[in-house]
Amino acid sequence: MADAIDFYFDFSSPYGYFASTRIDALAAKYGRSIDWHPLALGVIFKATGSAPLTTLPMKGDYSIHDIERTARFHGIDYRLPPTFPIATQIASRGMLWVQATHGDAQAIAFAQAIFRALFVDGIHVGEPENVARIATAVGLDAAALIDAAGSDAIKAQFKDSISAAMARGVFGSPFIIVDGESFWGFDRFDQIEALLKNGTI
Amino acid sequence: MADAIDFYFDFSSPYGYFASTRIDALAAKYGRSIDWHPLALGVIFKATGSAPLTTLPMKGDYSIHDIERTARFHGIDYRLPPTFPIATQIASRGMLWVQATHGDAQAIAFAQAIFRALFVDGIHVGEPENVARIATAVGLDAAALIDAAGSDAIKAQFKDSISAAMARGVFGSPFIIVDGESFWGFDRFDQIEALLKNGTI
Repeated sequence: MADAIDFYFDFSSPYGYFASTRIDALAAKYGRSIDWHPLALGVIFKATGSAPLTTLPMKGDYSIHDIERTARFHGIDYRLPPTFPIATQIASRGMLWVQATHGDAQAIAFAQAIFRALFVDGIHVGEPENVARIATAVGLDAAALIDAAGSDAIKAQFKDSISAAMARGVFGSPFIIVDGESFWGFDRFDQIEALLKNGTI
Repeated sequence: MADAIDFYFDFSSPYGYFASTRIDALAAKYGRSIDWHPLALGVIFKATGSAPLTTLPMKGDYSIHDIERTARFHGIDYRLPPTFPIATQIASRGMLWVQATHGDAQAIAFAQAIFRALFVDGIHVGEPENVARIATAVGLDAAALIDAAGSDAIKAQFKDSISAAMARGVFGSPFIIVDGESFWGFDRFDQIEALLKNGTI
């Protein structure tokens, strides 16, 4: 089987959420699997001198509109969260714990539930009690997940994972690497599909 | 006839060049005309705290690769210019003079020749002698164009035109406004076409 596709995202990224709703089906169509990698864009932005898209002058107002329009255009459920952007490290570190203890399928189910809670139901997934509720809903041990998400071991693992991503050139969300080829943005799915289909781009 | 589509671009923007190669055919398909508006992104970036894409940390290297790949994907002639990015105000102000004195068709022919010189033939179109040569090649009075491009009147007109664009929310290139709806980026052409086709998006 061909190598897995690397899918990097921040739970607070709307375009990352859009990608999360489509990437598994796209990969499955071409017999590929996906490795999901949560990021903390705040850490990366400190290194690159960037800032959350929706907070940038002019670009911010445009992007809020573009995100809603893009969701409609692609038929994806979406509502601007009442508090946005938010820090989502607890969910990200919780996901690493689920990957290590329960495997990828449950980790992806948890990630999809976090994305949906934030971008469809408007739940503040930066709050541990909300992350715990979502964990319970997808059949995980919420107390164990929250404990692990606050542990030094998982914090170190998350930091290393972000450094490793940056060493591969990852600077935004969604960021997808297929066979060494890097793609930034939900609007590169057409090019990703061409590469998966033709083996070259 | 429906209102013209506003097409904003900087001559030094590769994605703006890509848009320039496709926008007339797209508009014609739906019986629309295009108003071409050259910008100086440097002026806008001063206001928004941004910088040319290819000069940004991490994003710069990615974008140089993405630009080449996007050109290939869409079948557009492209080569990274040897000197890049460059200031292209002489060509922009020259275009305003062509619009005023010769009309839109000749101004667009001049603009397309400038884009092609820069992004296909690698000519430094920031140099007045190169702009003059291109003007001559498309049948314009090169000396008159260069004179006008350096005149206070055209400089003031260009400044006002950029201010008017910013007042409409324009912050990048390409930036396209159709019936009050704003689109940033060559990768929004699918959404622009949907709006032109359906009257809504």
